Order: sequence, then structure tokens, then C-alpha cells
Amino acid sequence: MDKIAIIGLGLIGGSIGMALKGQKNPNLQVVGFDLENSVGNKAVKRGAVDKAVWQLPEAVEGAQIVIIATPVLAIRDMLQTIAGMVSRGCIVTDTGGTKRAVMDWAEEYLPEGVSFIGGNPMAGKDMAGIDKASPDLFRNARYALIPGKGAPEAAVQAIVTLVEGLKATPFFVDAYEHDSHVAAVSHLPILLAEALVSATSKSPAWREISRMAASGYESTSVLAGSDPLTNLDMCITNREAVVHWANEAIRELVRLRDLVNGAGNEAGAEALGTALAKSWEAREIWHTKYLSGDFSSDDAGPRTQMPSPGELLADFMVGARIRERYQQMFNISEKKEQERRQRRFRKT
Amino acid sequence: MDKIAIIGLGLIGGSIGMALKGQKNPNLQVVGFDLENSVGNKAVKRGAVDKAVWQLPEAVEGAQIVIIATPVLAIRDMLQTIAGMVSRGCIVTDTGGTKRAVMDWAEEYLPEGVSFIGGNPMAGKDMAGIDKASPDLFRNARYALIPGKGAPEAAVQAIVTLVEGLKATPFFVDAYEHDSHVAAVSHLPILLAEALVSATSKSPAWREISRMAASGYESTSVLAGSDPLTNLDMCITNREAVVHWANEAIRELVRLRDLVNGAGNEAGAEALGTALAKSWEAREIWHTKYLSGDFSSDDAGPRTQMPSPGELLADFMVGARIRERYQQMFNISEKKEQERRQRRFRKT
Repeated sequence: MDKIAIIGLGLIGGSIGMALKGQKNPNLQVVGFDLENSVGNKAVKRGAVDKAVWQLPEAVEGAQIVIIATPVLAIRDMLQTIAGMVSRGCIVTDTGGTKRAVMDWAEEYLPEGVSFIGGNPMAGKDMAGIDKASPDLFRNARYALIPGKGAPEAAVQAIVTLVEGLKATPFFVDAYEHDSHVAAVSHLPILLAEALVSATSKSPAWREISRMAASGYESTSVLAGSDPLTNLDMCITNREAVVHWANEAIRELVRLRDLVNGAGNEAGAEALGTALAKSWEAREIWHTKYLSGDFSSDDAGPRTQMPSPGELLADFMVGARIRERYQQMFNISEKKEQERRQRRFRKT
Repeated sequence: MDKIAIIGLGLIGGSIGMALKGQKNPNLQVVGFDLENSVGNKAVKRGAVDKAVWQLPEAVEGAQIVIIATPVLAIRDMLQTIAGMVSRGCIVTDTGGTKRAVMDWAEEYLPEGVSFIGGNPMAGKDMAGIDKASPDLFRNARYALIPGKGAPEAAVQAIVTLVEGLKATPFFVDAYEHDSHVAAVSHLPILLAEALVSATSKSPAWREISRMAASGYESTSVLAGSDPLTNLDMCITNREAVVHWANEAIRELVRLRDLVNGAGNEAGAEALGTALAKSWEAREIWHTKYLSGDFSSDDAGPRTQMPSPGELLADFMVGARIRERYQQMFNISEKKEQERRQRRFRKT
């Protein structure tokens, strides 16, 4: 009987458990541990674990794989605590949103003969907790893996197999690179969502304003509704990179504000329109790649599949949409240019 | 036979047409007009209009209601153009995202005997165009209405009935208030999404970074993927309010950056945690109201329905979640406080 222990049975831990149990492997036992007993009970009810235990040693002893799915700062405590409980040959992994600190802690605390493979599933939801867990949370998601120093190939392969079992796509990345990249695409979006919510909800007119907020506000603010403790831990363990990206965003926001402010004349309107079209294009290109899962020269992971004809078609259509759009903008500019010329003629 | 004309058959115009046609009223004819013939043809195919015409007079002549569903700046041209075509007694409405400029244009251009009721459906999608239109786009959405000067009660009631037929909830608002409020909850989110995309995609490492972007980046940037021309028009016609809210967001972002920067010690971490928890709470409260459609003292619209027991339960549960969360944060603070005390003891 193989044993996998999941420590922390929230959205991520619970979803991993549900995906593992969904494999219906009669030789696999999934044991869960959560600091809150009620969460453990729910995890059993939701089919995320075969059993939930209330003592940490009972969870990790004899486990081939231990998955730590707590907020980042709690991973440190957990690594310290389980160091004396795990068997030689055990593989420990985590799901923390930052990786440099975690890799350091694992190296510091875990004994020899125990491998650590850091992990970060690139998936989430606006709401935390076992109630929101789903066996499909990781389907088609990319899943970052960072083998600890001296982790044997077999241990790495075991975690790759685990991740593929969640229907996610594993890829390897350096911890420093990971943290600096997620600061841009995971942590900066959190700050922007927070800034939106705090700027608007602080207004004395928020009671009236809030009634006008709809789907656009909902999606832009979605990360402000994600677990604040998880977000806090990520910011704390990635301060330098988060501050860097916050500064980049502030600079862009100032630039956009100035463009809006100057859009009262034709040249200003065109400058703002060009900026909006550029972001639109960049977002469309990214989104097409994201939806198809095809980032062409993605040589960091084991994914070597060719894009399907459908995906190529999607690429083509985005290109057409972009051209059409620019054409439309160009036509407007040209019309304005003609009008400007006519006005000039009238003046002379 | 009643006739409704829809000018502009994109996402909004197309969806209105599909919802109207879905009512299967044998006495109603929906006629569409779009500058692009291909869009008109698609609208017919998608069942958004009974017929698409290529001459504007053919669309609006004899129509009881004319709906202008173009980007804001095009509404001006349309009002000017149709002024000589519409019959006495006709009611004109629009779906533009800003309302002050539109109300001024309607007053300036439309002849006596023709009523104008400005409108703004609080619904949208990340992608524009007739292909994305849906008869359910407005279901449960709030729909702002602003009667023009001297619009008779019967005309207002006709548009209220139209909006209710789209399954949306009409409410009345002043044009100035409307524009200042949507600047906060519709236009500021656009700027934040644009800032996110431009800050990240400008990075020399974007090729690598972009592969790490997932659902959080997707939702925060969703508005950067919405129609840039529509967004441009909204910014141009609402500059002052958009600049005001951009400044508020910049201030919040600077504050958050400084909090992250200072989160390297316990007091700093707690300050950041408190800020994240506050935004989380504000977002949860808003989101619960938004999902239930119950903004309690919403006395501006005709919606007087009491919240259902399910909605009240949702309110209660959010409260419980917030309390639980704060409790958890408080416990952590307390634990840290104890540790700090212990450390202090050891030192003496």
C-alpha cells in the first residue's frame, strides 16, 4: 500500500486529494492532516482523503510522499516539525506560491535521505477552503517544480508522475527565476486588485458606487477575494520582487493617467488609443497561448506536444482580429486626418 | 406591427436583439443596422434581428424605438444622422458606457416630439463582437436609465419595459453621478488591467514570465482584452472622473508597495496583513451583495423584492467567514506576541 500524506486541506490540498482519489488506485492511501479538525472532517466527506488524522506523526510516518499545502510561512514550521518523523527515502513537496525561502528551509531542516521537490501549481480560485476544492482545479494548469539540492532522479520523477496524475503540466524552473516571475504575474495582480478595492471602497460614496459595479469590477478585483493570509505570506517571502513590479505598475498607471488627461484633443486621443490597442494586442496574444497551452518555445518542461490544428486556427484568428482592429483604428485616424485637412483648407 | 431598430450589432446590440427575438412576439419586428455588412449578415444568422438593412433610413423610419449600441463617440454621429429620419413619437435610447456627453448630444440633435432615454447595461464580456452575443448577457444585470429633458412618462415606461424584457433590472440615476460612479467601478478597472498588461509585457523577460501567468493574471487583465475603441471613447468622454480615480488607485498602490517593502519585520507584516484583510472584507461584502442582487437600501430602482432566505444565509455566512478569518489573523499575531515575549525573556 502506497501512502501519500497531505498537510493542509484547504483549496489546494483538498483539490490534490480529490484528484488523487479520483484515480481510484486501490494501492494508494491518501491521509490528510489539518490544524482545524472541522476541515479534516470535511475533507473526508468531500472525498479528498481516505482518512483525516489529528496527529501529525500519524499522517507522515510511513508516507512515500508528503505534500505540504499550507500558506508559505507555515511550510517552515511544518518542515521543522516533520523532519524527525519522515522515513528515509520519503519525498517531501509543497505548493507554496514563493519558492526561494521554501527551498532554503527544506535544505536547512530536512534530514539526509529525504528528498525535497518544491512545487507551485499555477491554478487557483478567488475563494479559499476545502468547500471550494475540486478534482479538476489543476486540469491543464502548469505546475512549477524545483528539485532540492541532491534530490535523486527517481524522486523528481515520482513528483512529475504525481503532478501529471493531477492532469497538470509540470515544468522545471530555478527558484530565483520562479519568484521573480510570479511576482509579475501572480503577486502584482493581487496588489492591483487590492488597490482597486481599497481605492473604491474607501470612498464616502461607496454605498452608491458599489451598486454600479458589475462583471468588470468583479474580475479585476477577484484576487482581493483570495485568501489574505496566503497572499500575506507570498508578499513577505518575495518582498524585493513584488516591490519592483509594484513600481513598474505605478509607472504604467501614471503614464495611462496622463494619457487620459491629455486625451481631450485629437493627438492625445490617438496616443491613448494606441496605448489601449497595444495592451489589447499583448493580452490577446498571451491569452491565446494560455488557452491553447502552447507557448511554442517552452523548453523548460517535458511538454513537447505539437499544437493541434484547432490551436493553430486560434492563433490565426487572433492575428486576423488584431489586424482588423488596427485597420479600424487606422481608418478612424485617417478620417480624422482628412477632417483636419478640410478644416485647414477652410481656414486658408 | 411594432418595429425596434438596433444600430450597431456588436456584443451589446446583438445580445439585445437576441433577447428581444427570444420573446417570440409575433407583433414585433427587430431591424438591425451595422456599418459592416458582414456583421449584419451574422446578426441575421444568429437570430439577433429579423432583418439587417444597409441603409440607415430603412432601419429607423417607422420604428417606435431606436437603440443605438455603438461606441460612445459614434453615438454623436448617429444622433445627428437619424435626427431627420425618426418619426414623431419615436423613443431613442443608447447603451454607451458614459452618459453626460450622450445626454447633451441627444438634447442638441434630436427634434421635438422625439424622446431620448439614455441607458447603460451593467454587463459585458472580455470579448467584443456579434460572435460573443448572447440573449442572456443582461440577465440579472442592473441597467442604468437616464430620461432626457422632457421625456414623457410613457416613453420612460416603454424603455423600462424593454429593459425588463432583457431580464435586466432598470434603475434611474443622474448622468453626472453615473459617469463619476462608473469611472470608479468600470473605467478604473480598465486602467488597472491595462497597467498590469503593459508593465509585464514590456519586460525583456516577458517571453519566460508569460508562461507563468495563469488564472489570477487572466481575470485581473480581462478588461485589457475588451474592445479598445469602446474603452477609448469612455475615457475620452469621462476624462476628469477617470483621472480622479486613477490618482486614488495610484495612491493606494504606493501605499501597498510601501507596506510590502516594510513587511520584513513583525509589525510591518501585521500592517500589511491588516490591509489585505480589509480589502478582502470589502470585496467579500460587495461580492455577496452583487451575487444576490440585493443592495438593501437600493431605492433608486423599481426593485423592491425582499431577499430570499438563501440570500440572507449567504450574508450570514460571509460574516462568519470574516470573523473566522480575523480570528485566525489575531491568533497568529498573538502567537507571535507570545514568542516575542519568550525571546525577550531568554535575552534577560
